[in-house]
Amino acid sequence: MTALRVAVLASGSGTNLQAILDNVHGRDGIEVVGVLSDRRDSHALERAAKAGVEAAAFDLRPGQPGEAFPGDRRARDSAMAAWLVEREVGLVVLAGYMQVLDPLFLDHFPHAVINVHPSLLPAFPGLDAIGQAVAYGVRVFGVTVHFVDEGVDSGPVILQRSIELASPRSSEHVHDLLRPIEHELLTDVVKLIAAGRVSFDPSFPRRVVITAPA
Amino acid sequence: MTALRVAVLASGSGTNLQAILDNVHGRDGIEVVGVLSDRRDSHALERAAKAGVEAAAFDLRPGQPGEAFPGDRRARDSAMAAWLVEREVGLVVLAGYMQVLDPLFLDHFPHAVINVHPSLLPAFPGLDAIGQAVAYGVRVFGVTVHFVDEGVDSGPVILQRSIELASPRSSEHVHDLLRPIEHELLTDVVKLIAAGRVSFDPSFPRRVVITAPA
Repeated sequence: MTALRVAVLASGSGTNLQAILDNVHGRDGIEVVGVLSDRRDSHALERAAKAGVEAAAFDLRPGQPGEAFPGDRRARDSAMAAWLVEREVGLVVLAGYMQVLDPLFLDHFPHAVINVHPSLLPAFPGLDAIGQAVAYGVRVFGVTVHFVDEGVDSGPVILQRSIELASPRSSEHVHDLLRPIEHELLTDVVKLIAAGRVSFDPSFPRRVVITAPA
Repeated sequence: MTALRVAVLASGSGTNLQAILDNVHGRDGIEVVGVLSDRRDSHALERAAKAGVEAAAFDLRPGQPGEAFPGDRRARDSAMAAWLVEREVGLVVLAGYMQVLDPLFLDHFPHAVINVHPSLLPAFPGLDAIGQAVAYGVRVFGVTVHFVDEGVDSGPVILQRSIELASPRSSEHVHDLLRPIEHELLTDVVKLIAAGRVSFDPSFPRRVVITAPA
């Protein structure tokens, strides 16, 4: 069996990346071969280095020559795609990646870009999903891992997990409770994809099919 | 303690009504004092009669004189409100009631009309919520009981309950699984309201507060 070559894109502290490095990297036929960030100062890059995984920043903000793509998202996304194609990446995981990817990027990885989002989509897409949910007054919170399409958090759902909270104290409180669920759900999905257990229903392309273990 | 006088509005077979009659009517300080339907042929009316509860149809479709309000929703809703006010109803429960209530009706019962909806609102409001959720491809389904405002399924959430379904077979399958959750959640909320445990956060009126038992 050839290993599934995974790349992780992260903007922030990289806790979801860390969960992938700790729980799936180097086993179950999964190899994390690259970590990219849109921020030169992302802690995710250090986490990658520590795990011996190649990492690079594709930062739109002006900086050292050769690293930045000032203001040109499309050029940046195109360069990222080239970087990943060169490393024969088979699955791109957005783990707290705060940029919308150019369609040109997605075209390189059909049905092979996934994202983790801290709500039960289609409820509360976009920024500050947890804040939106607390403001709405929901009692059930959750996490979605989905395929990325050209919309914002609108692609086909792979897995979702929920928790009931009779009285959420604050967004931070909910965030603390959802974070371990994000880690668990994301690593579960990477394992399912590596095991070839995730496919699409041809008669109903929004519908992701999870097949039983072989 | 004075009993909470409850009315139930139903359009269909009335299984949620039956759950209320079976599980809360006549105990915990709760008295169902009336059942109304927008359909003369609703099975809910028979269920009410069987339980010795007064019932009436306010049917917009032309029928026997004196019973119908042909085409005039506002007149119908006004007559229903008068019927309920006369019976000193303190809580109106929409249990599979398929009509949008006129604001004039709601004005009679401020913060005292609740509805049960088979989705985790704000996802999938309106008709065929379960069909919408299956078509979207969600993995987490659920039920919401909420206060009714002038929008469609948009009022403040009281309780929600969820179930995870790795592979929902059909809308009917999901519906069969959600029905007992609807019954449970709706009776739970009626009991909480009767116990005086449901209130609003004055600084944040969308937020329903459930207080601990006295």
